[in-house]
Amino acid sequence: MDETLLMIPGPTRVAPRVLKAMSENIVNHRSAIFGQILKDTSQMMSDVFRTTNKSYLLTGSGTAAMEAAMVNILKKGDKVLNVVGGKFGQRFMQIVEAHGGTSLPLEVEWGQAVNPDEVGFLLEEHEDIKAVTVVHNETSTGVVNPIKELGKILRDHDTLYVVDTVSSLAGDDVEVDDYGIDICVTGSQKCMAAPPGMASITLSNDAWDVVNRTDSASYYLNLKKYKKSGDADPPETPYTPSVSLIYAMHEALKIIMDEGLKNRINRHKLAAKATRNGVKALGLELFPEEEVSSTTVTAVRMPEGVTDGEFRGTMRNKYRVELAGGQDHLKGNIFRIGHMGNITHRELITTFSAMEMTLRELGFDIQMGEGVAAVADTYLPEDV
Amino acid sequence: MDETLLMIPGPTRVAPRVLKAMSENIVNHRSAIFGQILKDTSQMMSDVFRTTNKSYLLTGSGTAAMEAAMVNILKKGDKVLNVVGGKFGQRFMQIVEAHGGTSLPLEVEWGQAVNPDEVGFLLEEHEDIKAVTVVHNETSTGVVNPIKELGKILRDHDTLYVVDTVSSLAGDDVEVDDYGIDICVTGSQKCMAAPPGMASITLSNDAWDVVNRTDSASYYLNLKKYKKSGDADPPETPYTPSVSLIYAMHEALKIIMDEGLKNRINRHKLAAKATRNGVKALGLELFPEEEVSSTTVTAVRMPEGVTDGEFRGTMRNKYRVELAGGQDHLKGNIFRIGHMGNITHRELITTFSAMEMTLRELGFDIQMGEGVAAVADTYLPEDV
Repeated sequence: MDETLLMIPGPTRVAPRVLKAMSENIVNHRSAIFGQILKDTSQMMSDVFRTTNKSYLLTGSGTAAMEAAMVNILKKGDKVLNVVGGKFGQRFMQIVEAHGGTSLPLEVEWGQAVNPDEVGFLLEEHEDIKAVTVVHNETSTGVVNPIKELGKILRDHDTLYVVDTVSSLAGDDVEVDDYGIDICVTGSQKCMAAPPGMASITLSNDAWDVVNRTDSASYYLNLKKYKKSGDADPPETPYTPSVSLIYAMHEALKIIMDEGLKNRINRHKLAAKATRNGVKALGLELFPEEEVSSTTVTAVRMPEGVTDGEFRGTMRNKYRVELAGGQDHLKGNIFRIGHMGNITHRELITTFSAMEMTLRELGFDIQMGEGVAAVADTYLPEDV
Repeated sequence: MDETLLMIPGPTRVAPRVLKAMSENIVNHRSAIFGQILKDTSQMMSDVFRTTNKSYLLTGSGTAAMEAAMVNILKKGDKVLNVVGGKFGQRFMQIVEAHGGTSLPLEVEWGQAVNPDEVGFLLEEHEDIKAVTVVHNETSTGVVNPIKELGKILRDHDTLYVVDTVSSLAGDDVEVDDYGIDICVTGSQKCMAAPPGMASITLSNDAWDVVNRTDSASYYLNLKKYKKSGDADPPETPYTPSVSLIYAMHEALKIIMDEGLKNRINRHKLAAKATRNGVKALGLELFPEEEVSSTTVTAVRMPEGVTDGEFRGTMRNKYRVELAGGQDHLKGNIFRIGHMGNITHRELITTFSAMEMTLRELGFDIQMGEGVAAVADTYLPEDV
């Protein structure tokens, strides 16, 4: 279909093993054989979330899971503190408002991470905050938020801690139980390297207590139904699930287990470091401060004097490497290199080589090979 | 994974061509190449719906599309007439109630079809009915409702006509424009024989007028966003879609076009007739009256003196043919033979042969071969 190297922050290319598993024919979604696959997949999701709680699979995009996280705990007028530092932080706020909740947005400049103390101050100021939402890895800005530190602050408050790990889970440190996360959501198509179209959610006992005394404002996303079906033996889903995508997730999760979650996260961290080193070697500027730069997607300021169409267009059409652009007010101002899922040294070398050729072609006075060398250097053992 | 012959009313086995298309690797969901696939798939969906209006794809189950049909037109307290003659008719009612609408249920005995005149009477009696919902093919009872005749009655009333064709579209007559249907929803995994996990929806101009002046009570299922993204060039989806399942739907729809929609519907009608003839030849009793018996799933009363576990268990475990049981209060009282998607003479012969062996084994005095012969006879040309 398209031999372009996909270096966007999801969806990512998936391994042949995963495509093969997905191409098995359909079975009855209410059979013992499918129940076993569902059970294993859910268990492996919990292992990746690092929680002893159950995980549930939703047939839908990550956004469906974000909405599920809100509609099952909110009553009209309930106050939610939304950390908003990018498009996905905004989305949580919009979801709260769509359901008649009152959003208290903590605006963080796009490109910066939230300061956990500011969340603490707001929680002291407003005693009636039902939940705090934060996007771990803000895909739109390439910023990682300090969810561990936030968890420490939230531990002293009677509020639900809701974290979107759509573009970080299995690629960066997420310890649901250890960080005290009450509701954690993710998508299939990012660091887990399964195809898009599935989401997963896990809830703490505290979160279930709230869910159980709240009428869900959504029928399709009513988590009480997912729990009832999912806790049966064999487990089921309340509505016909995407059987093929669950085969695919099952296989993608087995690959994660084979690689080892820790190894996989370290591989992502190394790819992020190599990318940042390559960017700097080419004289380009990271969009976020390096300390808060994402482990799974690197946002870079568009060099002066070149348009998004010229830069990304040449990358894609001539060198067959697809990068992502900026979203909303960052459109044209940044580009983003996704390095999540199965990305290794090889794909980064190809990407930086294409970037060097593209920049030279567009008239930039860069030293050919500097970016590629900086990437390769990062992968060398430290004692070489 | 499982060599069982799947004779349930969805999901159905899918053609190797479809599995092959689905196993292509992932592309950027916001690229021209994917936009073309989305455009073609949406156009073919409209062709199958038999409408000149656009169709939109939702990453979710058929239930997500049912909810989308309601949450985008309803305000609190709005009255909806729900035809309820089975589990899926009930579901529409529950969705209306979950969103604060007032359901006016027209209860139809399970196993019977709605009388369009009764809908007419209720519409005369209540002038403020915003929408009427009906499930074309009530999968739970094997009954087909007269959506063409209902359309004629609704034409004289200022109400939206909402039809669930999840288990009928591409297997039975559905003429969205001709019947005056305002909102029509379907799922991927039934007569279209694509894998489960996708849904589609199409709306008339009258329906869009209502949608445009209504705040959607769902964020994920906000149809205004699907329209905005879907009408762009190239079209997109508002949230990351299930890329692989759209590849699969695209291929499944091409198969439908290759076969010809009319031919495909006739093939389903013939399979239904053969199934009913086989059932009667074995001395079993159809659950619905024959005139309203579904074209895609045949519901049969469980013979006296045998349990669901014995009958379907033997069918499944010994003869590897999977039938569906009854749902809710019909559990144990009926079984259902799905004959949708790619089902031909061959699968029905296998099914009836297994049914004959199973029934004999369970002590029934049936004439071996009678069911199989009745099926085969139905497929013979009339002049033989």
